[in-house]
Amino acid sequence: MPYKLWYWPSIQGRGEFVRLALEAAEIPYVDAARTEGIDAMMQVMAAKDGRAPFAPPFLQSETTVIGQVAAILMFLGERHDLAPSGMADRMWLNQVQLTIADMVAEVHDVHHPVGIMDYYEDQKAEAARTATQFREQRMPKFLSYFEDATKATRGEWLVGDRWTYADTSLFQLVEGLRYMFPRRMATLEPDLPGLVTLRDRVANLPGIRRYLASDRRLPFSTEGIFRHYPELDAA
Amino acid sequence: MPYKLWYWPSIQGRGEFVRLALEAAEIPYVDAARTEGIDAMMQVMAAKDGRAPFAPPFLQSETTVIGQVAAILMFLGERHDLAPSGMADRMWLNQVQLTIADMVAEVHDVHHPVGIMDYYEDQKAEAARTATQFREQRMPKFLSYFEDATKATRGEWLVGDRWTYADTSLFQLVEGLRYMFPRRMATLEPDLPGLVTLRDRVANLPGIRRYLASDRRLPFSTEGIFRHYPELDAA
Repeated sequence: MPYKLWYWPSIQGRGEFVRLALEAAEIPYVDAARTEGIDAMMQVMAAKDGRAPFAPPFLQSETTVIGQVAAILMFLGERHDLAPSGMADRMWLNQVQLTIADMVAEVHDVHHPVGIMDYYEDQKAEAARTATQFREQRMPKFLSYFEDATKATRGEWLVGDRWTYADTSLFQLVEGLRYMFPRRMATLEPDLPGLVTLRDRVANLPGIRRYLASDRRLPFSTEGIFRHYPELDAA
Repeated sequence: MPYKLWYWPSIQGRGEFVRLALEAAEIPYVDAARTEGIDAMMQVMAAKDGRAPFAPPFLQSETTVIGQVAAILMFLGERHDLAPSGMADRMWLNQVQLTIADMVAEVHDVHHPVGIMDYYEDQKAEAARTATQFREQRMPKFLSYFEDATKATRGEWLVGDRWTYADTSLFQLVEGLRYMFPRRMATLEPDLPGLVTLRDRVANLPGIRRYLASDRRLPFSTEGIFRHYPELDAA
């Protein structure tokens, strides 16, 4: 049975970090909520065997259900040799992935600062304030950290000579930020040559090239985590 | 050399999740910023060997520096047998820890909804709005999830018959929420018997009992992540 990846069917969202690793590694999977529907996804989550995931995305195999992006990616890394097996490298990739997750959470807070369950339109003034601080302080801090990370390898990828899930995740982070903050990213990217080069390498992986050209890759939109609201962007 | 745990010296904060696991397991460590100072901590972070942590807390051994609470705890779990070694159990504990981290991030957003680098006093109106939704919708959702998790074991602990780092982290989560939202927790706790029992078991571990009675355990305060502002609490 191929893996079932369960995630909201109409957005990239956090599911995309898992999708990209699966696609790059050419591991068979089904984007299950797109074929079976959201009700079926909710039924898997509601299964009170006690080890249900808290929220999508989650990955279902014949024997297990795993939630949390960083946990899913670590699982795939171990099972499918998508990551080095030495402790130091494994923990470093996990650290980078968790720091990406922290930045993605702050990206979400930009457009939903006060009402996680309300609409953006109900918190636009607050979002403008959050966005300013995010653009001016948080983006340079996070991105220069990831830039330094790309320099901490002797190979072409984040760890050595093979791509790992942290590389595909950094690709998605750059893509998402380019969509959400095109003006700000144009300002910052000249200082991020390692990150931009890494992004380009991921885009050229055969599995990723095929995926990006397929209809499995949904477009970014203002329903997802990265949202382009022009009023929140600035150089 | 004992581990050096680096974290802001005057608050429990995210460092406490690491501290509790170390104390419960009675693993020797030094709370390094309390003795060597914040400047020394900054120097470790600034080391551009490229695998520096993004933010405190981080754990330093003779050979490695690891950031991100969930990564540190996974590392300690493997190195010191603080967690089961089977894939399913390991991933489940990691999932629970990451979901705790998600809730802790939302706890922080309650008092810092729009200005992560500003004072609470500069965002009190926004915080009141965030707090209402957090109390009414997010707390029951997260806490009932953790309550279900306590029922997903045949033993006394989250996984089987031995405590793990996810147990000590759930202890800290309950303690923090009791400090921050005493009225709300009084309402919710009758529906969380498994979580409250687990909290009590952790409090009675010999290493934790000694730690809580020592001056190494800092008090909760309005400088940390869990902050008691009476105006943000309600039954």
